[in-house]
Amino acid sequence: MDYEIFELGDVTLQSGVMLPDAFLAYKTYGRLNADRSNAIVYPTAFGDRHHNNEWLIGEGMALDTEKYFIIVPNLLGNGLSSSPSNTPPPFDKSNFPQVTIFDNVRLQHQLVTRKFGIEKIALVTGWSMGALQTFQWGASYPDMVERIAPFAGTAKTWPHTFVFIEGVKAPLLADALWRNGNYTEPPTAGLRAIGRVYAGWGFSQAFYREESFRQLGYRTLNDFLAGFWDRSFLGLDANNLLAMLWTWQHADISANSMYCGDFEKALRSIKAHATVMPGRMDLYFTPEDSEYETRRIPNANFRPIESIWGHFAGRGINPDDTEFIAAQLKQILDVC
Amino acid sequence: MDYEIFELGDVTLQSGVMLPDAFLAYKTYGRLNADRSNAIVYPTAFGDRHHNNEWLIGEGMALDTEKYFIIVPNLLGNGLSSSPSNTPPPFDKSNFPQVTIFDNVRLQHQLVTRKFGIEKIALVTGWSMGALQTFQWGASYPDMVERIAPFAGTAKTWPHTFVFIEGVKAPLLADALWRNGNYTEPPTAGLRAIGRVYAGWGFSQAFYREESFRQLGYRTLNDFLAGFWDRSFLGLDANNLLAMLWTWQHADISANSMYCGDFEKALRSIKAHATVMPGRMDLYFTPEDSEYETRRIPNANFRPIESIWGHFAGRGINPDDTEFIAAQLKQILDVC
Repeated sequence: MDYEIFELGDVTLQSGVMLPDAFLAYKTYGRLNADRSNAIVYPTAFGDRHHNNEWLIGEGMALDTEKYFIIVPNLLGNGLSSSPSNTPPPFDKSNFPQVTIFDNVRLQHQLVTRKFGIEKIALVTGWSMGALQTFQWGASYPDMVERIAPFAGTAKTWPHTFVFIEGVKAPLLADALWRNGNYTEPPTAGLRAIGRVYAGWGFSQAFYREESFRQLGYRTLNDFLAGFWDRSFLGLDANNLLAMLWTWQHADISANSMYCGDFEKALRSIKAHATVMPGRMDLYFTPEDSEYETRRIPNANFRPIESIWGHFAGRGINPDDTEFIAAQLKQILDVC
Repeated sequence: MDYEIFELGDVTLQSGVMLPDAFLAYKTYGRLNADRSNAIVYPTAFGDRHHNNEWLIGEGMALDTEKYFIIVPNLLGNGLSSSPSNTPPPFDKSNFPQVTIFDNVRLQHQLVTRKFGIEKIALVTGWSMGALQTFQWGASYPDMVERIAPFAGTAKTWPHTFVFIEGVKAPLLADALWRNGNYTEPPTAGLRAIGRVYAGWGFSQAFYREESFRQLGYRTLNDFLAGFWDRSFLGLDANNLLAMLWTWQHADISANSMYCGDFEKALRSIKAHATVMPGRMDLYFTPEDSEYETRRIPNANFRPIESIWGHFAGRGINPDDTEFIAAQLKQILDVC
């Protein structure tokens, strides 16, 4: 096991449900300095685990382990932090409670403050659902977070993204083996089919037109669909996926008692320096939604990733995009 | 029965398979004039039937029944023309042969010439898969077709559209009731799920952001998903859908012995006056692909439908878009 567990005890979620013995799985990189001023929080994305974030972390890299103490908390529902797959009855499987992005960030805040005694965070950054958490950190803890750098993600789930996620769920729910979450064997046909649905959304039209999947080592479109996409959700637990998708569909930095649904106010309340990096051709976290939000954050720069890799421009698999994101992160970390 | 049947006899398809007793279902509107110079061909789109095209047809309308003789042939596989659902064994159900856009247009040509003795076609027009057929008419019969006006469709299925269709098929194939096409009861879970997948593709991000579904009488996003989308594929035959999707995925005006896969040559060979109308925010028949093609057709105008209704800008359900398309059709029909 290459990660730590932070025990949260009994946690009352935003929904009012009490989740007993909740826990966060996390990994840290680098060392916390004496005045605890060098912490970076870098939450994980949908279906990811901490190791998926490591492409930005290391000596001399954007998130430099020589300078910074990087905490990567795993998203609730991802199978390492509290999830349908690892919670005992009565909250196991499809009975796992609905968890919000706000819940995730509140519990990460407990990890950061109680475990490490950190009072200021130098930077929160993250991709996709990690970006949702990044914005939430800025809105939930405006006096604590000095910088945010969300990439390929927004401050709430906009309506079209909600619809796109309905389509992602659809084949799983249509698989008879799923049995409303009480499956006795994995609904593999549905899980595999999710990859086919996702394939058209993850990358842009231009990515496919120009056959950029060749850069990933796939010779043909069919190789890419079978090799990259069909397996991407196959090993994951169906209830875990559905729990994370619920979290995603209901994300909104203002959906809490701090902001009472006033999204504009929540955006205005973010005090952090912000570098917002949508993918120019992202089909669901669109640059238009991102620009709308960025304009309302007082101290924010809009820095689109000029790439045809769509949402996956933020995945760390295209060197040009990685270079751009890394440069932006270095730049914002130099801002006082 | 509000349509006619044209018996084609035994038809050898592009694939080499002989389909016995093939037939086209079609409906005509208006009257063929004495010199047979006023014919318009207006093929149907994926999952549609002739009546779905009627929003452009009528007295004083864009396709004016006082002036023109409009022939609407039903797409092979749509349940009215030869289809998996209406073909006897051994070519019934999942054994129905693979039919191309080229095949469709060749058989429509037989209808037009043998049944009606038409030698010149004033206009071919169509939406989506109807546009694929429109381009094919222009490339297959360059000396016969005087004008083409494809809307929200392209001259071939570009790679991303192929991938999007993979996602449309995915939930149906994941439904255990489907049984590789040998279902004994309809795979309703899969058919319903197709609507959820399609919902994100049919309309643009902006359409959902601005809640334009309210113009269709739906009060909430969930009403729209349940009322518009969940039922849209539910009554259709699964093998028919898959047959049409195969046709769609393999569309290419140059995929035949006339052009031997030389797409540029096929585009250059279109002699018709062309008005090409992509939806500006169409997520699968993209304006970029459409512009690429239009530039290569010698006598073509590029006229995007400036709309947030995405692919469904060409569906005849948004008055502004309908007005634009109608005006373009009237204009091209006036060109000598």
